[in-house]
Amino acid sequence: MSSSFGTLFRVTTFGESHGAGLGAVVDGCPPRLALAAADIQAALDRRRPGQSDLTTPRQETDRVEILSGVQDGVTLGTPIGLIVRNADQRPGDYGNLDTVPRPSHADFTYQAKYGLRARSGGGRASARETAMRVAAGAIAAKLLRVRWNVEIVAWVDAVGDVAPAAVDPESVTVAAVDGNPVRCPDLAAAERFTAAIVAAKADADSVGGVVACVARGVPAGWGEPVFGKCEAQLAGAMLSIPATKGFEVGSGFAGARLRGSAHNDAFVARADGTLGTATNRSGGIQGGITNSEPIVFRIAFKPPATIGREQVTADYAGRPVTLAARGRHDPCVVPRAVPIVEAMAALVLADLAMIQAAREAAAPR
Amino acid sequence: MSSSFGTLFRVTTFGESHGAGLGAVVDGCPPRLALAAADIQAALDRRRPGQSDLTTPRQETDRVEILSGVQDGVTLGTPIGLIVRNADQRPGDYGNLDTVPRPSHADFTYQAKYGLRARSGGGRASARETAMRVAAGAIAAKLLRVRWNVEIVAWVDAVGDVAPAAVDPESVTVAAVDGNPVRCPDLAAAERFTAAIVAAKADADSVGGVVACVARGVPAGWGEPVFGKCEAQLAGAMLSIPATKGFEVGSGFAGARLRGSAHNDAFVARADGTLGTATNRSGGIQGGITNSEPIVFRIAFKPPATIGREQVTADYAGRPVTLAARGRHDPCVVPRAVPIVEAMAALVLADLAMIQAAREAAAPR
Amino acid sequence: MSSSFGTLFRVTTFGESHGAGLGAVVDGCPPRLALAAADIQAALDRRRPGQSDLTTPRQETDRVEILSGVQDGVTLGTPIGLIVRNADQRPGDYGNLDTVPRPSHADFTYQAKYGLRARSGGGRASARETAMRVAAGAIAAKLLRVRWNVEIVAWVDAVGDVAPAAVDPESVTVAAVDGNPVRCPDLAAAERFTAAIVAAKADADSVGGVVACVARGVPAGWGEPVFGKCEAQLAGAMLSIPATKGFEVGSGFAGARLRGSAHNDAFVARADGTLGTATNRSGGIQGGITNSEPIVFRIAFKPPATIGREQVTADYAGRPVTLAARGRHDPCVVPRAVPIVEAMAALVLADLAMIQAAREAAAPR
Amino acid sequence: MSSSFGTLFRVTTFGESHGAGLGAVVDGCPPRLALAAADIQAALDRRRPGQSDLTTPRQETDRVEILSGVQDGVTLGTPIGLIVRNADQRPGDYGNLDTVPRPSHADFTYQAKYGLRARSGGGRASARETAMRVAAGAIAAKLLRVRWNVEIVAWVDAVGDVAPAAVDPESVTVAAVDGNPVRCPDLAAAERFTAAIVAAKADADSVGGVVACVARGVPAGWGEPVFGKCEAQLAGAMLSIPATKGFEVGSGFAGARLRGSAHNDAFVARADGTLGTATNRSGGIQGGITNSEPIVFRIAFKPPATIGREQVTADYAGRPVTLAARGRHDPCVVPRAVPIVEAMAALVLADLAMIQAAREAAAPR
Repeated sequence: MSSSFGTLFRVTTFGESHGAGLGAVVDGCPPRLALAAADIQAALDRRRPGQSDLTTPRQETDRVEILSGVQDGVTLGTPIGLIVRNADQRPGDYGNLDTVPRPSHADFTYQAKYGLRARSGGGRASARETAMRVAAGAIAAKLLRVRWNVEIVAWVDAVGDVAPAAVDPESVTVAAVDGNPVRCPDLAAAERFTAAIVAAKADADSVGGVVACVARGVPAGWGEPVFGKCEAQLAGAMLSIPATKGFEVGSGFAGARLRGSAHNDAFVARADGTLGTATNRSGGIQGGITNSEPIVFRIAFKPPATIGREQVTADYAGRPVTLAARGRHDPCVVPRAVPIVEAMAALVLADLAMIQAAREAAAPR
Repeated sequence: MSSSFGTLFRVTTFGESHGAGLGAVVDGCPPRLALAAADIQAALDRRRPGQSDLTTPRQETDRVEILSGVQDGVTLGTPIGLIVRNADQRPGDYGNLDTVPRPSHADFTYQAKYGLRARSGGGRASARETAMRVAAGAIAAKLLRVRWNVEIVAWVDAVGDVAPAAVDPESVTVAAVDGNPVRCPDLAAAERFTAAIVAAKADADSVGGVVACVARGVPAGWGEPVFGKCEAQLAGAMLSIPATKGFEVGSGFAGARLRGSAHNDAFVARADGTLGTATNRSGGIQGGITNSEPIVFRIAFKPPATIGREQVTADYAGRPVTLAARGRHDPCVVPRAVPIVEAMAALVLADLAMIQAAREAAAPR
Repeated sequence: MSSSFGTLFRVTTFGESHGAGLGAVVDGCPPRLALAAADIQAALDRRRPGQSDLTTPRQETDRVEILSGVQDGVTLGTPIGLIVRNADQRPGDYGNLDTVPRPSHADFTYQAKYGLRARSGGGRASARETAMRVAAGAIAAKLLRVRWNVEIVAWVDAVGDVAPAAVDPESVTVAAVDGNPVRCPDLAAAERFTAAIVAAKADADSVGGVVACVARGVPAGWGEPVFGKCEAQLAGAMLSIPATKGFEVGSGFAGARLRGSAHNDAFVARADGTLGTATNRSGGIQGGITNSEPIVFRIAFKPPATIGREQVTADYAGRPVTLAARGRHDPCVVPRAVPIVEAMAALVLADLAMIQAAREAAAPR
Repeated sequence: MSSSFGTLFRVTTFGESHGAGLGAVVDGCPPRLALAAADIQAALDRRRPGQSDLTTPRQETDRVEILSGVQDGVTLGTPIGLIVRNADQRPGDYGNLDTVPRPSHADFTYQAKYGLRARSGGGRASARETAMRVAAGAIAAKLLRVRWNVEIVAWVDAVGDVAPAAVDPESVTVAAVDGNPVRCPDLAAAERFTAAIVAAKADADSVGGVVACVARGVPAGWGEPVFGKCEAQLAGAMLSIPATKGFEVGSGFAGARLRGSAHNDAFVARADGTLGTATNRSGGIQGGITNSEPIVFRIAFKPPATIGREQVTADYAGRPVTLAARGRHDPCVVPRAVPIVEAMAALVLADLAMIQAAREAAAPR
């Protein structure tokens, strides 16, 4: 039951890394949204492997097919069925993984959980699973843009231990993010990040990083107290992405070091008469509910577990072994994680938007 | 619908800060668990206000009553109804809040969401709501302890910008945590933290902090891919606690700075023949599934928004005002957040335990 | 987890028959609905025992208390906590039931399911559980009335094997239904039904019956394909009421005997220009979605299992025994089932109304 | 969100009648269940059109493809993705339906709900949608058979107004049911039913009917009080099947005519020492929980709405029109409904089995 996400705008995904294909069902999307395969394909193309030297050389064209829910270029309101065929599987690459669980990968835990596991390439634990998040998220993002004028932009904020980027969440654009392969709109930082990834790759090693994300245009009032708070759903969504280790919203961990007098966001009247805040340490959310300021959050990604360097570890039987993984893997996941983060944010916000729309429409006038 | 949490072990809560009372329904708890009101009361007593100089002076005895689901000292398997009456309400304390939204509090967003709001004290956004999380979590924690020998311990890991604590998650105990009012088992750090809170209070100010938590004894195999990963559910649970700004598991944000060769947890054979890991940067979870190492995570709490110091802000109409909040509030939430974090962790793990139990019991032999 | 019902308008109940009390949490009710305890009490008073000679003599005043979610006479949009204390428990009445499961009652199955059971009076399987359905349903019914002008009326349509009632679903009123203790607005039928119940009671026996229900004013468009069809949710809701054995909508089982040419409801233009149907064998629902005609359905209730007459059966150990139940029980449940049926219908429709409101509000314009 | 069904064993479906194809995701199926496409294909072949003169001549081979979740002939525990391509669409057949809603069909209500509709053939309201229920149900049925030795058999119990069948639920087999095209194991009744269908078809008309179903081997203890009772879930599942008008379990509507002394099922010791009941008016369920007797229920199906005979009705604008539907349709749905009923029963029971397995495994020993 954990392959579904959302309450009213709800996506269900399936597919192993080296099986026949991947798919998603998007249920609850409202009718009359203009939608074509190209809308989804554009998002998939941002995520797919083989885009640059910084990512895995696995070649997957990730051509999406819409099987249902769309007619004459608009949604019907019925479930939208999507599939992507796997093309470039090479199960042979994963030979000795049948006896040795990769350190910090999911081989061991899948075996413990299910009593068996997908033979190669991580099965459901592979990052390949995220393709369908991106596909579904593209639909959510389009609904948010068309119906509520909400815009979501993510970027690479840090890679390894080099100095992080400086990016203004109020103005950053997808075009600026996509201006370089490492997906960092701060060009000086982009150079540092690229160098760090290239160096890790040269060492048959991998490196971690941080993705930041902003959602602009969200009106005040989205987010469901108590357990469905906006930041709670974002945190849960982001930590469901493979390789994530942390989430922070607004001031985040740095905010925990402050006093209230230095942390509070004072209210100010905007030119249009609505209330805004002079600062945004809240990250656009107060008490779990959006306040109409930009929603800003960051996600930590660990370095990919699969590396070519030799590692001393143990096989399933507990015998010491030295492992040097083959297979094709990203030396750093954050450039490709950017569209995944945007997709999950869109899925969270589209769902919260619909739930709040129901409340407003159902409340006595 | 967002006042419910969990799939099989499921809690639903209700209650405003200054209404008649609070309550919870715990549905799905298995039958035949020894349970008395005292089990729950002990947990509530750790959370309730007025425990020390470091917390709000509001006096609430928080006496819990079990209305259903328990007979002769054991659970029936039917929903467990719990209520706590509010006692020490002082709505009068919140006079001018009817016209001025408190900075970084939920007054403004509740008004935007619902078109009205609880007159005083934060209503559903008050930390008082967390009492019922603690009550329900006490039942989950007892089930985990009795049935699976799982133990959960949280502690205060940092307060403000003083040096954080050094605590060994493998050995820390609740008794050590509760050994001082600030709930930090590192006694030197406890002194620093206490001083920081006392200083903030003296300044009519507040200060943030970090709570860390460990769950020991969790077997390998809990956690539901893809969207129900163990760390995703923990992150969502923790960010649903009021005043939280961040979550990290295992190596967390620091892990994002490392290379894979320095981050991976090599497998090693344990004395009992099972596989463990030599290090625990994974925080006990790989691919969303527990690996039998301790689950370790940290949560950032912002400084409380309600402070006595004067703040320049705006009223609902956008007019500049100077606000100095009355009411009774904690200068720092982390000491009282410790049992709340434990409770949410217990609710997540009890639910995941039951879902995995279903899978194992239903799989063909 | 099965003590919750609904997606957006969601009720969770708790409480055993002979425990301390019963309660409900209504989560998702929109804000700004005028609501007082009296609204709920009026519904509870229609359900409570001891209303006439036709029902159990158990005396329960069923005074409801609202613990949260309402302020100044309107809903806050937060969860509404309700409790009712049990008053007239007499566990002693159920002495030998500890060793003998009542035929066609839930004693045996609860024991099998939980490995123990509430000591007396049916625990969670008692009809007493339905009080909280009625309480929650009263809120849903008020929302439907105030916001959508929807009116729900149920009545007793048949008792035992006497001739059923003839009632016009287009015009029947609650006042007419409540005009006599047996709750049948066809006065001749009411006499027959009363006589049948009195005769069964005189024989220390019980008798079954049928409740019919209409919802008028529902607009076209409520109901969620495929698994959330309006009739599917009504059927599930009604069969969750204790003692139910069947459900039919519109033409029902009689419709299965017809040909399409005799069954189809031709469309006709109404005076206001909208489309209606000349007949209503569809019962107001086509393809799972309401068509703006009255929703009409019927529910079969078996005769109460607990009877004073001697029954030859077996104890838990399989030994033959003769059982003559004590305790206080209804000779026929349908008069008191009328408000329960209305409540469940209201819960279904309020939820479907909100889900459709979300879709309409979220669809691009 | 209404295209998903179940809690732990959960199916999500998609697909319009005349789109590219249909699909389902089965999430939560335990690992290590032997499963091949042939298991599913066999069930689909029983449902697909064109099997005999009694069904629609539409030709669909309904070849299922498993895209994920199965490896080396066993389930992985991950979501099972299934697709079936549509082959024999003839949208042209439905020409004037763009202006005239078919009486008692879903054309009008889909238009009202979504503001647009699938151009032809009923879209999501078509019986074609049920193919994926059957596919998913085949997996549930196999799990029930392999793991719990549960067997589900449905048959045609009545057609139109001819005398119904007499079938023993304790002994009826799928082989006997499939022994004739009308799927009635009572051969004399099968002849009557066949004649009734042939006569309706000859008149360019349609006819209704009743399907009965039994589940044997279900242990005592499945079913979740209060809202998740076994009969409630079965009722909801069955009324979600297109064209259904009623559901009854055990004694059903006939039971409502009886007295308790005639209706109660006395307990008796079985040869193996367990408790059974001498009669089975309860239909295998007491208080919402299975009692280990066969679960027996019946479902009423209306005559198909689409008929070749002329009908006087109105177009969307309210103008009177005479409609004679083209397109290819079943004169009676019940023969093809048999595997659909079995599938929905299997989905309900597999889910309840897993939920109860979780409870038993999680309860303290």
